[in-house]
Amino acid sequence: MNARAPELSTPSFSDLLAQSRLPFPASCKRYLPGQLHAELRVPVRDIALTNGEQVSVYDTSGPYTDPAVQIDIRRGLPALRAPWIDARADSEWYVGRPRAALDDGSQSEEAQRLKQLRAEAAGLQRQPRRAKSGANVTQMHYARRGIITPEMEYVALRENGRREWIAAYQQDSAREGRLAGNPLGASIPALITPEFVRDEVARGRAIIPANINHPEIEPMAIGRNFKVKINANIGNSAVTSSIEEEVEKLVWATRWGADNVMDLSTGKNIHTTRDWILRNSPVPIGTVPIYQALEKVGGVAEDLTWAIFRDTLVEQAEQGVDYFTIHAGVRLAFIHLTAARRTGIVSRGGSIMAKWCMAHHRESFLHAHFEDICDIMKQYDVSFSLGDGLRPGCASDANDEAQFAELKTLGELTQIAWKHDVQTMIEGPGHVPMHLIQANMAEQLKHCHEAPFYTLGPLTIDIAPGYDHIASAIGAAMIGWMGTAMLCYVTPKEHLGLPDRDDVKQGIMAYKIAAHAADVAKGHPGARARDDALSQARFDFRWQDQFNLGLDPDTAQAYHDETLPKDAAKVAHFCSMCGPKFCSMKITQEVREFAARKGLADEAALAQGLEEKASEFQQAGGQFYLPITPVK
Amino acid sequence: MNARAPELSTPSFSDLLAQSRLPFPASCKRYLPGQLHAELRVPVRDIALTNGEQVSVYDTSGPYTDPAVQIDIRRGLPALRAPWIDARADSEWYVGRPRAALDDGSQSEEAQRLKQLRAEAAGLQRQPRRAKSGANVTQMHYARRGIITPEMEYVALRENGRREWIAAYQQDSAREGRLAGNPLGASIPALITPEFVRDEVARGRAIIPANINHPEIEPMAIGRNFKVKINANIGNSAVTSSIEEEVEKLVWATRWGADNVMDLSTGKNIHTTRDWILRNSPVPIGTVPIYQALEKVGGVAEDLTWAIFRDTLVEQAEQGVDYFTIHAGVRLAFIHLTAARRTGIVSRGGSIMAKWCMAHHRESFLHAHFEDICDIMKQYDVSFSLGDGLRPGCASDANDEAQFAELKTLGELTQIAWKHDVQTMIEGPGHVPMHLIQANMAEQLKHCHEAPFYTLGPLTIDIAPGYDHIASAIGAAMIGWMGTAMLCYVTPKEHLGLPDRDDVKQGIMAYKIAAHAADVAKGHPGARARDDALSQARFDFRWQDQFNLGLDPDTAQAYHDETLPKDAAKVAHFCSMCGPKFCSMKITQEVREFAARKGLADEAALAQGLEEKASEFQQAGGQFYLPITPVK
Repeated sequence: MNARAPELSTPSFSDLLAQSRLPFPASCKRYLPGQLHAELRVPVRDIALTNGEQVSVYDTSGPYTDPAVQIDIRRGLPALRAPWIDARADSEWYVGRPRAALDDGSQSEEAQRLKQLRAEAAGLQRQPRRAKSGANVTQMHYARRGIITPEMEYVALRENGRREWIAAYQQDSAREGRLAGNPLGASIPALITPEFVRDEVARGRAIIPANINHPEIEPMAIGRNFKVKINANIGNSAVTSSIEEEVEKLVWATRWGADNVMDLSTGKNIHTTRDWILRNSPVPIGTVPIYQALEKVGGVAEDLTWAIFRDTLVEQAEQGVDYFTIHAGVRLAFIHLTAARRTGIVSRGGSIMAKWCMAHHRESFLHAHFEDICDIMKQYDVSFSLGDGLRPGCASDANDEAQFAELKTLGELTQIAWKHDVQTMIEGPGHVPMHLIQANMAEQLKHCHEAPFYTLGPLTIDIAPGYDHIASAIGAAMIGWMGTAMLCYVTPKEHLGLPDRDDVKQGIMAYKIAAHAADVAKGHPGARARDDALSQARFDFRWQDQFNLGLDPDTAQAYHDETLPKDAAKVAHFCSMCGPKFCSMKITQEVREFAARKGLADEAALAQGLEEKASEFQQAGGQFYLPITPVK
Repeated sequence: MNARAPELSTPSFSDLLAQSRLPFPASCKRYLPGQLHAELRVPVRDIALTNGEQVSVYDTSGPYTDPAVQIDIRRGLPALRAPWIDARADSEWYVGRPRAALDDGSQSEEAQRLKQLRAEAAGLQRQPRRAKSGANVTQMHYARRGIITPEMEYVALRENGRREWIAAYQQDSAREGRLAGNPLGASIPALITPEFVRDEVARGRAIIPANINHPEIEPMAIGRNFKVKINANIGNSAVTSSIEEEVEKLVWATRWGADNVMDLSTGKNIHTTRDWILRNSPVPIGTVPIYQALEKVGGVAEDLTWAIFRDTLVEQAEQGVDYFTIHAGVRLAFIHLTAARRTGIVSRGGSIMAKWCMAHHRESFLHAHFEDICDIMKQYDVSFSLGDGLRPGCASDANDEAQFAELKTLGELTQIAWKHDVQTMIEGPGHVPMHLIQANMAEQLKHCHEAPFYTLGPLTIDIAPGYDHIASAIGAAMIGWMGTAMLCYVTPKEHLGLPDRDDVKQGIMAYKIAAHAADVAKGHPGARARDDALSQARFDFRWQDQFNLGLDPDTAQAYHDETLPKDAAKVAHFCSMCGPKFCSMKITQEVREFAARKGLADEAALAQGLEEKASEFQQAGGQFYLPITPVK
């Protein structure tokens, strides 16, 4: 499976994007209107089933899967949120920070190539806006003043999906209590109202990452009482990859379900790359600003300064980054706690800050200047993703003193951020055996005041290089059920190399599975409805519906074709594993129709009915599967 | 990723087997001697690390990965257990059941081809043996009479692996209680003794599947207090595949870690296929005899009779099948409970028996003749795998009345089997959302008297066709931690098609991950030792060791090569994701060495030390990664 089909790796960028823009089979985009804000057009993907039913699913792919939308990635996506931001009249256009030579890194491409890249990106330059003097433009600030923004209503509509499902789900759950799920302390209402979203944002239990300089996004919420979200990391690096690849990876990632994307570029042309990604991204974009700051000082951690870091925050806030990972919890006093660890500090940002602290024997400037950072965040509505710089890097370092000391600090910083109405989420591990996962969630809830938890995995074992997307999806599903709001994906290349687009898809699939498993277990209204629709299609031998309702219709159909390539097989009344004679579902259909017809009340009725059925069978010659009828 | 590399699908059988026989990188087979039974040679795989250390791991690959062993699959493997069985002097050779025309199925190959296949398999014919009149040759029978068989000591040595690890592990766990795991009710001793194995088998809490007609196996145990095991299904089918493929799939499956293999053949030449598989299998083989019985009656379920089924049990017991899946829990009275289900009965065996019950309006002959079946099982030491014919086929059918009614029946049948000293395990679901998994384990423990639980997955969601190995590995890891003894794998082709060898490997990898995650969480002595060794190698930049300690060294190395192909990179002091400047582990090594050297007691000491370190850095010019030195 480490084999790659050549055609997946070699096509030109435009071919790739064409692939990424194909609508999903039997699917079309539909847009739900707002009520408080009539102009809202909230996307869902409708899947048309062969039995005439229609299934609508949450959709992260943005305009890319809507054939009606013309897209030129050299001009960027339409600024969906611009009128909402204008209407609030609390921000202003301004000249912005002048571009510095170092913005694209100290070891940037040779001048000619960079010039060319910047020229290509010229159409993506936007004038920045920021809060008017004294204003605060965060969604949390509005929420706390009782304002339901368009972003909040958008999120509510998006989370609900189809009301019919919620109704059906609630009937099932009323009938069969076991199907209601076990929220483990989450309080998910039957219907997500705009007011509920406002309240969750106001109390800090959810965030809506939405920099006013990223008007292109379709708003989404990260919070324990909403659907579990996933993040995909992309980014160039000193070692490999190109800008084109990065933008296509973004589109590819959102196509398969990435709710957020982090640009972890550390190499060449990072400013220019970021323009391309932000202007073309329908989902919130996060970064780790310390990476770029380090580039600006030639990679020498101890040369980092607050001035350079601050300048980088402003640079990225003006570009429209929606959240910053800030490792302000790596305190001088905690560093020695990692000395006895098996794998020490495995967070890049954490190790950079640890090195700085050591080199200067001072508390980190991130911690010292935390309120200054808040002042910047609230001018653009950049959210905090408080980084877990001391997360464990292996099973035997999990839940140790260093990790939990930092977590407590992140809780303190959360309260400072909230004092400024800055939206905040908390990053979590990492590598954690199953029996230690619950403690992570419990400590986070206890010390971080229900701020959304955003975990990497966790990986439940260390011996699966090449398969860490699976080793970590196990932990991700569990901690998602327990209350984690967003799961940062892990690809098969984790610990080994840079993910290519196939790795990105594999990582996203593993994490869509984990997130959905968590939603079903928590009893998120309607989460199980898609499973039920697919299982019904499976039982009814509606093969095409079975493929189309899946997370990856292409792969499902390709696998089926490997065994039963003929079109006829797509209407076969037996499954490709068992062959005609062993199809349990086919046999079952008789049991079921029969039993239903008889409305079997008790064994006696069953017995009586069965005698009839017995003779029926004899007469019918016991034939119990339908012949394959070729498709017209 | 649904792409397949052609060379994986097309090579000749002998090429494939040659592949499967390659020793693992830096690995060699070692054999541990017995103490009670000095002649025992219990295999472990030793992995030689580049730092001179050696790691030994549990090995399921049999003689195939031992270059010293000559293997001719047309003659079969050496009969390892023959002397032990002889020594017990309670069984006898006999003529055995005459081969019947129908043994290879009603729709077998055209005569010529079948004749040829049988000729090729001729060297694999063995005369059967059975218990002498009145004798009982089950491991449970010996165990209950206080006899520690060679099989039991073999299992004990195999489970312990390396004592050094257990010691190291216990030190860790003593130091850091959190690392001891949480057994959730399992009672795993620090050291597995032969007497402990005997006691577990005697009380029915573990089984050692070991038909006296399958002397080729390397004995293994399935029980809650032993390492969690995995099963891989192979088998031809009416739709596709060949005998050669099946044998190679077996070898391939055991290479990657299948502890058991089930032959689910339902198509042509099933008797002959089974000869090939059994004679060449170092692991226990399970079957579902009703599949072959159904072939014998032309696929007409209602034509099945006890006589035909009984004859099939004897046929397969004589061949050496180690356990039979018997769906005796599908009772007439339960069938109507499935009428309201979304996907009815999804077990093939279950649906066949349901159909039979309906057609005859009688209790199933499996249930009616259960004690007669026990009489056969104990003559050969075939173990029961009591089938869950009414397992749920989708999330919304999970934990329903039909499922638990059958489970209670399986508990009753377990006690009947134990009355005959017949080893028994219980099959479990299926499709179960995370929040309903615990109840499955609790009900099984409650009603089945701690007989080993053997679950298929469970799949936690229904919407991942093409990725069900992942959707189910999540449930498998959780229920394995909770107490399931063996996990039946699911491949990416589940619900879609027949797995090819790549699918088999993917399924096994997902389940090795789930099983190991469960062992680590339960605190199985030494389980985490391999993780620690790999993580240490990761921290030390011993890339080759990192690959070789993984579950799949080939894939790990291939992925690393994709990003950093140069040999030099294999000794690079940075990881391929981050590049030189961002290598957290490299940075950490300084923090760590430094802190260790200082033996930092408190922050003051840290501070003092840090000043020194600060100036050191300045002098060193802050260089913090080693140049890449090419490999000689």
